[in-house]
Amino acid sequence: MTRLLINQGYFVTMDESQLQFRGWMAVEEGKIVGLGEGEAPQSELAQATETMDGRGLLFMPGLVNTHGHAAMSLLRGLADDLALQDWLQNHMWPTEAKYTGDDVYWGSALAAAEMIKSGTTTFVDMYDHMHRVAEVVEQSGMRASLTRGVIGLCPEDVQKAKLADAIQFAKDWHGAADGRISVMISPHAPYTCPPDYIEKFVEAAHDLDLPMHTHMSETIAEVEQNVRDYGYRPVEHLDRLGMFSRPTLVAHAVHLNDEEIALLAERNVAVSHNPVSNLKLASGVARVPELLKAGVTVSLGTDSAASNNNLDLFQEITMAALLHKGVSGDPTVIPAVEALRMGTTYGARSIGLQGVTGQLKEGLKADFIALSLAQPHFVPHTDYVSHLAYAARGSDVAHVWVDGKQLLRDGKLLTLDEEKILAEAERCFRRLRG
Amino acid sequence: MTRLLINQGYFVTMDESQLQFRGWMAVEEGKIVGLGEGEAPQSELAQATETMDGRGLLFMPGLVNTHGHAAMSLLRGLADDLALQDWLQNHMWPTEAKYTGDDVYWGSALAAAEMIKSGTTTFVDMYDHMHRVAEVVEQSGMRASLTRGVIGLCPEDVQKAKLADAIQFAKDWHGAADGRISVMISPHAPYTCPPDYIEKFVEAAHDLDLPMHTHMSETIAEVEQNVRDYGYRPVEHLDRLGMFSRPTLVAHAVHLNDEEIALLAERNVAVSHNPVSNLKLASGVARVPELLKAGVTVSLGTDSAASNNNLDLFQEITMAALLHKGVSGDPTVIPAVEALRMGTTYGARSIGLQGVTGQLKEGLKADFIALSLAQPHFVPHTDYVSHLAYAARGSDVAHVWVDGKQLLRDGKLLTLDEEKILAEAERCFRRLRG
Repeated sequence: MTRLLINQGYFVTMDESQLQFRGWMAVEEGKIVGLGEGEAPQSELAQATETMDGRGLLFMPGLVNTHGHAAMSLLRGLADDLALQDWLQNHMWPTEAKYTGDDVYWGSALAAAEMIKSGTTTFVDMYDHMHRVAEVVEQSGMRASLTRGVIGLCPEDVQKAKLADAIQFAKDWHGAADGRISVMISPHAPYTCPPDYIEKFVEAAHDLDLPMHTHMSETIAEVEQNVRDYGYRPVEHLDRLGMFSRPTLVAHAVHLNDEEIALLAERNVAVSHNPVSNLKLASGVARVPELLKAGVTVSLGTDSAASNNNLDLFQEITMAALLHKGVSGDPTVIPAVEALRMGTTYGARSIGLQGVTGQLKEGLKADFIALSLAQPHFVPHTDYVSHLAYAARGSDVAHVWVDGKQLLRDGKLLTLDEEKILAEAERCFRRLRG
Repeated sequence: MTRLLINQGYFVTMDESQLQFRGWMAVEEGKIVGLGEGEAPQSELAQATETMDGRGLLFMPGLVNTHGHAAMSLLRGLADDLALQDWLQNHMWPTEAKYTGDDVYWGSALAAAEMIKSGTTTFVDMYDHMHRVAEVVEQSGMRASLTRGVIGLCPEDVQKAKLADAIQFAKDWHGAADGRISVMISPHAPYTCPPDYIEKFVEAAHDLDLPMHTHMSETIAEVEQNVRDYGYRPVEHLDRLGMFSRPTLVAHAVHLNDEEIALLAERNVAVSHNPVSNLKLASGVARVPELLKAGVTVSLGTDSAASNNNLDLFQEITMAALLHKGVSGDPTVIPAVEALRMGTTYGARSIGLQGVTGQLKEGLKADFIALSLAQPHFVPHTDYVSHLAYAARGSDVAHVWVDGKQLLRDGKLLTLDEEKILAEAERCFRRLRG
C-alpha cells in the first residue's frame, strides 16, 4: 500500500474552512487522507511510502467540465463565425452523421488528452456511441458523467431504439471503471424531442434512479419556438413533463426570465454555464449573477471544441469572472473565488459528486492538479486565488491525479499515447471530410 | 553576415495576398528577404548560412500590444473585483506613488518576460520613469512605442516639470535601440488633464513630429464628467484641443456615440481595444464592430496586469473574436482572421509601424514567432487561422524573433534572466507593500 506525502506545496483547497495555505497533503488508496498548514507532522513523514517536493507548485482540486461533446473535437475549426442553426444543420450534423464508433473513440481520446493536460479531471459528455467514450474514460483514468444524448425527431421505432440504447448504456456503465463513470439520462433538448418522448426519458431516469441532463434555452429562437409549439417557455415545459422531479443539469440556460430563475432554484436544477460557446455562437450572455443570487448551482462547461474551440476550463473560469462584470456593469459580481468554485465545487455538486471530488479535503477522492508557479504571470505572490481565476491558463498545469493515480507528469500524459491520438484524430477527420 | 532559412514550416503571414501556406522564409540583416510556398528554391538553400527545420511549427508575425503599463505587473492580483475609480484611487495610485525607478525597471522586465514568452514582439507602454522602461526594451530586444503618461491634476510648476520630462524622454529615446524604440506624447486622459495642459502636449507633439496616445472614454462616468466640465463628449473635446491633428492612438474608447465613431474615422484616429481590462473593471463593451465598419483602425491591448491580470495578447485576440459576437447577437462579426489582424497588422498600423512589422512579407522587419503545432488543441488541421484565433494561447509560443534576433528558444528567454526577474519583482512588491 502506497501513501503519498506532498510536502511544502501551496494549496488552494476550495474548502472554505481553510481556503489557501502553504503546507502538506497525504494521499492513500485514492483518497485524501490528511492535509494541513506548515510542515508535515512527524507521523505523516513516518507513514509516507513516497514523498513529493511541492515547492514551486500550486495544488488545487481537478477541474470539472460539466457540458461537452468530446468526440466533436474532430470538428474543431471546421466551421466558424456562423449562426447556431446554420452551424448545426449545415456543418455539424451532416459531418456527424458519418461518425463511426472509431471516430467517437479517437475524437474523445483527443478531448481527454486536451482536458487532462489543461487540468480537467472530471467531465460530462453527451453523445452517441457512448460505450466508446466510456472506453476512453476507463483507459485515461479520468472521472466522467456520461450520457447518450438522444435527438427524437425521427420515426417511433427509431425513437424506441435510441431510448433503449440510452438505457442499455446506463445499465452497462453506471458505476464502472472503479466508480469513476456515472451515467445520466438525456433527451437532447426540448426543441429536438417531442414532449411524450421526453416523458419516457423521465420515466427511465426514475426507473434507473439516475439524474438527467439536457440542453435548454440556448437561443432566443428556441425559447420562442417552445412557446409557439407547446404554450410554455422551456423551464415550465420541462417542469410540467416531470424532468425536474429528477436531479437535473441543464446546459446553457442563456435566455431565462425571473420566474424561470426562481423555478430552477426551487426545483434545485443545476445549470452548466458555457460562456465561450455562447459567445462564439452569438447565443447571448446567461444571467449568471442572478442565477447564483437565487441559489442555483452554476457550474462551467466548454461545450464541444467545435464551438469553443478548445477544452481549457481555465478559460471558462476566467471568462465567467470577466464577462458578467462587463455586461452587468458591476465589477464585484463573480469574484475570483466564486469563478473558481464554479469550475470545481459547483461542478461536482451539479452532477451529484459533492463529497466525492471538487475540493481538497480529507475523505474526498484524490482528484487534484498541480500548477507551476515559477512563471511571470504568477508573480508577484499577491493572491493565488486571483491568479488562478484571472491569470492562469490550462498550460500551467504540470501534474494531474485522479483517484490518487497520476495521469500527467511534467506535462506528459501517463495513461494515453498522445502522439498516436493526434495522428489517429487527424486520420479520422480526413476520412469524415473525404 | 548570416542568412537564416526556415524550411518546411507552416506560415500564417497576415499578408492577404498569401495568407497561409506550407513553405519557407529567409531572414537577413533583421529583415524578411524572401518567403514562399512549397520547398525552398535551390538558390535559397545555397545562400543560407543557417537552416531551421520548420516542421511542426507555425510561423506568424509577432503580436503587437497597443496599450499597457508594464511596470504595473508588480501589482498583479493586488486588488480585484472593484470599480475603476475605487481600484485606481484607493489601491493603484497610493501604491504607485511609492514606485522608484528600480520598481519600474523590474516591473517592466517582468512584463517583458511575460510578453516575449506569449508571443508579443512590439508593445506600447505609458508610464513614469520611462527611461527605465526603455532600458528594458533595449536589453530585451523587443520593439516598443513608449510614452511618458502625464496626469495633470497638480500645481503649474509640477505640470511644467512633467511636460518637460515627457519631451526630454522623447528627445533621448525616439529612434533608439537600433530604431526599435519610438516615442509618443501622452496626456494621461481628458479627465486627468486640464484642456490648456492637453494643448501644450499637442504643441509638443507637433514640435517633435511625434504621434499622441491617451486614455479616452473608458467609463460612462468619465464621459458624463467631460460633458459637465467642458461641454463636450471626449472625442469632440480632444478634437477641439487639436489632438487629432496629430496621428493619435486612443485607448479603450468604450463609450462612443455614432457621431464620435464617424469623427474618429474621419480624423484617422486609431483605437486600442482592451476587452479583458474593460470587462474586469466593468467599464463596458466597446462598439468594435461599428468602429471597424466605419474604417477605424482597431488594435488590441492588454492594459496592465493589474486589471487583466496577464499580458497574453492571444487572450485579447480570442476575447475580441468571441465577445462582440455574443453581445451583438451576430456570430459573423469579427471573424477569426479579423481578430488576428487586430493583434498584428492593425496593431502595427495604429502606432505608425505599418510597413515595419505586423506581417510576414518581404522587406518587413523580421519580427515573428513560432508556435508548436503538435498539441491536442491544434488538431485536426482544419484551419490554422481559426485555431490561432479561437484555440491558441500564449504558452503555445516556442520561439520569438525581433529584428531577426532570436529572443526566445524552446520557451526559454535568451536576452533576459527570467529567474532573477521573478525574484527581483517579488522583492520590489514586498517593499512597496511593506
